[in-house]
Amino acid sequence: MKNFITINDLPNFKKCVENALIYKIDPFIHNGIGKNKTIGLLFFNPSLRTRLSTQLAAQNLGLNIMVMNLSTETWALEFEDGTKMSGIRSEHVKEAAAVISQYCDIIGIRAFANLTDKNKDEAEIVLNSFSKYAKKPILNMESSTSHPLQAIADAITIKENMPKHKPKVVLTWAPHPKALPHAVGNSFTRMINHIDADYYIAQPEGYELDSRITKNAKITYNQSEALENADFVYAKNWASYSNYGQILKTDNEWMLTKEKMKITNNAKFMHCLPVRRNIIVSDEVLDNKNSLVIQQANNRTFAAQSVIKLLIDGIS
Amino acid sequence: MKNFITINDLPNFKKCVENALIYKIDPFIHNGIGKNKTIGLLFFNPSLRTRLSTQLAAQNLGLNIMVMNLSTETWALEFEDGTKMSGIRSEHVKEAAAVISQYCDIIGIRAFANLTDKNKDEAEIVLNSFSKYAKKPILNMESSTSHPLQAIADAITIKENMPKHKPKVVLTWAPHPKALPHAVGNSFTRMINHIDADYYIAQPEGYELDSRITKNAKITYNQSEALENADFVYAKNWASYSNYGQILKTDNEWMLTKEKMKITNNAKFMHCLPVRRNIIVSDEVLDNKNSLVIQQANNRTFAAQSVIKLLIDGIS
Amino acid sequence: MKNFITINDLPNFKKCVENALIYKIDPFIHNGIGKNKTIGLLFFNPSLRTRLSTQLAAQNLGLNIMVMNLSTETWALEFEDGTKMSGIRSEHVKEAAAVISQYCDIIGIRAFANLTDKNKDEAEIVLNSFSKYAKKPILNMESSTSHPLQAIADAITIKENMPKHKPKVVLTWAPHPKALPHAVGNSFTRMINHIDADYYIAQPEGYELDSRITKNAKITYNQSEALENADFVYAKNWASYSNYGQILKTDNEWMLTKEKMKITNNAKFMHCLPVRRNIIVSDEVLDNKNSLVIQQANNRTFAAQSVIKLLIDGIS
Repeated sequence: MKNFITINDLPNFKKCVENALIYKIDPFIHNGIGKNKTIGLLFFNPSLRTRLSTQLAAQNLGLNIMVMNLSTETWALEFEDGTKMSGIRSEHVKEAAAVISQYCDIIGIRAFANLTDKNKDEAEIVLNSFSKYAKKPILNMESSTSHPLQAIADAITIKENMPKHKPKVVLTWAPHPKALPHAVGNSFTRMINHIDADYYIAQPEGYELDSRITKNAKITYNQSEALENADFVYAKNWASYSNYGQILKTDNEWMLTKEKMKITNNAKFMHCLPVRRNIIVSDEVLDNKNSLVIQQANNRTFAAQSVIKLLIDGIS
Repeated sequence: MKNFITINDLPNFKKCVENALIYKIDPFIHNGIGKNKTIGLLFFNPSLRTRLSTQLAAQNLGLNIMVMNLSTETWALEFEDGTKMSGIRSEHVKEAAAVISQYCDIIGIRAFANLTDKNKDEAEIVLNSFSKYAKKPILNMESSTSHPLQAIADAITIKENMPKHKPKVVLTWAPHPKALPHAVGNSFTRMINHIDADYYIAQPEGYELDSRITKNAKITYNQSEALENADFVYAKNWASYSNYGQILKTDNEWMLTKEKMKITNNAKFMHCLPVRRNIIVSDEVLDNKNSLVIQQANNRTFAAQSVIKLLIDGIS
Repeated sequence: MKNFITINDLPNFKKCVENALIYKIDPFIHNGIGKNKTIGLLFFNPSLRTRLSTQLAAQNLGLNIMVMNLSTETWALEFEDGTKMSGIRSEHVKEAAAVISQYCDIIGIRAFANLTDKNKDEAEIVLNSFSKYAKKPILNMESSTSHPLQAIADAITIKENMPKHKPKVVLTWAPHPKALPHAVGNSFTRMINHIDADYYIAQPEGYELDSRITKNAKITYNQSEALENADFVYAKNWASYSNYGQILKTDNEWMLTKEKMKITNNAKFMHCLPVRRNIIVSDEVLDNKNSLVIQQANNRTFAAQSVIKLLIDGIS
């Protein structure tokens, strides 16, 4: 595999999940393949799970690791072409990416959506600029529009908890005080195409995700309809996509509660974390044994390890 | 050993000090025991000695190391139960600790006292929340009320400089422009119980440490009385404990000077560092050959190594 | 080699460049010599190339690496002697350097000029304080007045692109919105003494570099005269040295353009990066195949590796 930008880059999604589960049993079976190779992990945004699980995954494969916080440790980067660089941005990504690619064999990048300009976010300027100028494999550690490592971890977690029947999987919007990107919702939705499931997305009017991504899903404005008899309920906030980056609804009507979970088929609860308690979901649901959020986070390590293995294979 | 929260957690204090001195002679005798294990070092506060010495100690034992600055690199954490998380804290420690504990075999935490709410500080909310939700060994890298790695390093240093007679050891309060926690004073005092010494604590009125901790010490408001014939003088500032977190005295009457040291028994000078020159102690005392502060800092590595070894033993 | 403060510390400049080129062919030929040794990389200022290339160089030699951001992760340091430390600086470099030197076998330091006080900058207070109190080899990762790792990388790059005739090498001042230090200009100039070249420095009046350093160079206020028939053109901004730290010229008259490059001998373009596009140099020149800036950055790794090897030799 040359780059890992979305899960569509995977040569074989099912195989990637299976390999992750093998790493979960023995993380060190390939601990020599990273020898004398270096992964650079570049963070434009905060990170807990991604930072630590990707680092651990790389360690398990024997890679050297260099972590850099782009917003605090180095020069502010310019991404526009042809600019007269007289402002605070003192280095162009053309140089930065080309330079870093000489020091690293694989480059992981985390760069969130700004949620102010849809075109810019969808152009994935940071990720694609690095991809264009770096000439080394790029590992998406959450970009403007996708979070594929999370989606693979989610797939692993669903597989580990799969009922015997074809499951009903629900992605439901939930409230949040800040405008959040669509990356997790997008990638989860793309991922579900690889699973034999009835897939519903529930959200208030105005919060529909990009229809090019959700075209195979059953979409509803009725959260109860979606939750009814569900086997997996994934809660997540995102800002409006049509009214790009706006918060349209601030009440707690869509918060996931114990009462709402009662109409599900004893559903497993999922969230990518970090999660705001009693805003997105009530304590009772999150602390219930049916909550998979900690398991999802654990599977981030093996998702990353499975993907990085493919990137190493691509350069070996 | 399951956790290292205070020196009382050590199965055998003397043995821990002895092992540290063995590591000081050969740091690499156990450099295979950390293989394929990972220590996460989490910093909520600034650190120089603790950060570098703990990292070095972990390296000497062959551990993988992941360092994270909680205040700048990841999400602000919520520690209160039942909160509606609508503010700036976007992740609850319940999730953060449980997640991190899946990526790490040992978790080191540095989280200072806030000095605004005695009950909260004494509840050791950060350390105990991680201990409760992480389910992995916790290494105290300085908490609200204790700094046990420093105390072990101090014990090593005293042992290396022990006179032939039973020593007089003095902990004296000294002035400082900012309100500082009681952690070092507490842990040094607890540690002295393991040493055969006459132990005095001198401080101005209103600056008495927690009497539950100092119950075996001779306490005086007269610095000269304490210094007289002393073999070790440990200077340290702390804010008022009774008038919690307040600064009651701002003049330099209690600064440690060359003149004051003259009434000691050619005492060794100790401080945990960082130390404010000519505020806590005069240049002359700090630059004198009797100053042990650099030696204390060196021993931090071997104290940490001795403690981490015990934590590894507990999970192997 | 005991310390690496300027390129004058190198026992043999040519040999250092040759060794770097050997590392460029096989970075891992000496990957055992750093075993059980630790390099501490201390950053007082932002860094991209230096941080990553030095880290990579150290990894290639098998060193353990500890990176610390002095401005965000630890205590603010005091450098003045005899101060009453009542302000924001809570630790003196005397202690900090002595302490760090116990945790590290080699100490890399990056500390830029402040450009407010020429005497202080020329005293190299940070670097020399560490050198004085640390008692371990110091690696200059750019100081107030010099950037010798960059100069070695530049020498490697020139060697790789050397024409058959004695080259004309030009260092030309270029505009910049901020006041920048003289470190790169100084070190490049010192380095050229080791190369058989005709060396010109061009700058507007008032921007002359320190004449003690430039004494062997041909100095001109006429950029065209310098560029004419040049084989290498190194563009770089610096603030005024005589009118210390001031910006005297803000127009783009001295920006390096395609038109200006036409009067050269098809010159190679050089810059240490980060470079402000269309301020220092036009896109056309930077994106031309004659631009060596990415190659220079790549050679930073091997320059650092060659130098660190000498520092390890000095302690082995």
